[in-house]
Amino acid sequence: MSRQIDYKAAADFLRSHDNYYILIHQSPDGDAVGSGFALCSALRDLGKKANVMCSDPLPGKYSYITDKYEPQRFNHSTTVSIDLADTKLLGKTLSGYSDYIELAIDHHKSNTGFAERLTVDPDASSACEVLYEILTEGEIPISELTATCIYTGMATDTGCFKYDCTTPRCHIIAAELMKEYSLPIGRINRVLFDIKSMERLKFEQKIISNMKVFLDGNCAVAAIMLADLARWGVSEQDTEGVAALPMQIEGVEVGITLKEKEENKFKVSMRSAEKVDVSEICMKFGGGGHTRAAGCMIEGDVDQVRMKVLAAIAPILGIDLWMV
Amino acid sequence: MSRQIDYKAAADFLRSHDNYYILIHQSPDGDAVGSGFALCSALRDLGKKANVMCSDPLPGKYSYITDKYEPQRFNHSTTVSIDLADTKLLGKTLSGYSDYIELAIDHHKSNTGFAERLTVDPDASSACEVLYEILTEGEIPISELTATCIYTGMATDTGCFKYDCTTPRCHIIAAELMKEYSLPIGRINRVLFDIKSMERLKFEQKIISNMKVFLDGNCAVAAIMLADLARWGVSEQDTEGVAALPMQIEGVEVGITLKEKEENKFKVSMRSAEKVDVSEICMKFGGGGHTRAAGCMIEGDVDQVRMKVLAAIAPILGIDLWMV
Repeated sequence: MSRQIDYKAAADFLRSHDNYYILIHQSPDGDAVGSGFALCSALRDLGKKANVMCSDPLPGKYSYITDKYEPQRFNHSTTVSIDLADTKLLGKTLSGYSDYIELAIDHHKSNTGFAERLTVDPDASSACEVLYEILTEGEIPISELTATCIYTGMATDTGCFKYDCTTPRCHIIAAELMKEYSLPIGRINRVLFDIKSMERLKFEQKIISNMKVFLDGNCAVAAIMLADLARWGVSEQDTEGVAALPMQIEGVEVGITLKEKEENKFKVSMRSAEKVDVSEICMKFGGGGHTRAAGCMIEGDVDQVRMKVLAAIAPILGIDLWMV
Repeated sequence: MSRQIDYKAAADFLRSHDNYYILIHQSPDGDAVGSGFALCSALRDLGKKANVMCSDPLPGKYSYITDKYEPQRFNHSTTVSIDLADTKLLGKTLSGYSDYIELAIDHHKSNTGFAERLTVDPDASSACEVLYEILTEGEIPISELTATCIYTGMATDTGCFKYDCTTPRCHIIAAELMKEYSLPIGRINRVLFDIKSMERLKFEQKIISNMKVFLDGNCAVAAIMLADLARWGVSEQDTEGVAALPMQIEGVEVGITLKEKEENKFKVSMRSAEKVDVSEICMKFGGGGHTRAAGCMIEGDVDQVRMKVLAAIAPILGIDLWMV
């Protein structure tokens, strides 16, 4: 049985345990990396042993965080997860820990409640925001490294304070972190949002030129096939963030990215402007996420998958699929 | 003779005058539009007459602000400028007001001090931030429209809180505005930063594919010729924001955009990552701006202009121009 515990109780749990494995989701993004390493850094500052565990390699762009990290040797005794909505997202390497998670710190409203204790706040912008509340309520010290990690996760999940999930509280926390430490936010945000290799820029050009618009211009769909990646010399890891591309087009309410994972199996990422709750649509397909950003896996060939997705979205937009 | 006056004194000036022309710079960006219309809205809320004046048409993306505005008829008596660093930037239509500006509200450290009274704060992120301080110190009411305008300017000039010019104070002001009014920040920021027409996306693809890297990869240069614009069917107005494109490339310290204005005359925009103060370089060429974003006009053909700019930047980066 799992039960929700508040920030203070979560802080008490963290203080009273030791020898942590901190689990984050596969294909880690800035909030997974930020929250995982922020928690690790805060625990180590308390004199505890802690490691961050992830099924996938950590993207090189986060080296300003990961370069400061060395795994520790210890006898593991406590397992916590952070930014993990579902144990399915642990990936193969870590799936063995699924039934032994003692505390889950998260912000996904789709969190499946897999842990013994849950500190899940769906109103928080990011797992990092939840962690910040736990650390400050529990008076656990925040070092410059911890602050850098927390800023990273909050910036990632709010699109640098750009999306509707940005609350006044997000801005206040950013101000508090920046007042206390001279965070190099310009450099961090350039790494998170702007800098691209020439190869990535060319890859984006190719995706954009292949993008198509459906449902009276309300949906833009980008499809990325394994054969394309091979032809363009792009690794799976280099495709992070492409889900934002279809949303750039004027008038688009839902941006859809179909990434072929294996034959007849696609990872579908959805982004929404205003009208559609894409987490609801993705849940229909066994996935989940947030109102404005969600994902799921769908089987079929690219045309079938595209049709399934558009058929699920059309009624919400009040569009008759056969009339457009 | 011009003299600096503080926020409170500026508010007193605004309260004690009437029949305003509010001058903003040509090629208006989000801070010019935001601060101009914020000031206009605040003055009208005080029962005063006020119009915003600009030499150039206002970009359609700001229609969520400009649609709520109607010019008023009155006998003009007071002239103020906002976000205007130099009267040269008034453009031809408004140049006649150059010597009669009674109050300049600005944040450019390159402000030439052209007005009778100056409220110039070079530490502020934006003219909108300076205006916010004036309005709150002077207890001048801020309506939802005024708040929307102020948010627009702050978001524009900080790249949505992304650049190093973002201070804790920017975040606090954003939080205060968002707490007081339910600003549709997701929609505003999509308009300001994300949404592009298919034509614009294709135009950017063309600029990116023509971009070249110089000085050991430290400088990326994009050149936009009048003939290109004609060939691509892109208006001058559609080129706003392209100065950010060269900065996307990994390793680039200075991003340079050369826009041909007429034969042998280029508008040069510079953006800097960390090492170079581009306002200093632009000032050498008679221009100005901020440490991380500045501009100037340079005469010559495209190769000559590019060489002049790179020759000015190379020594600052410790690069010998003849060795790379």
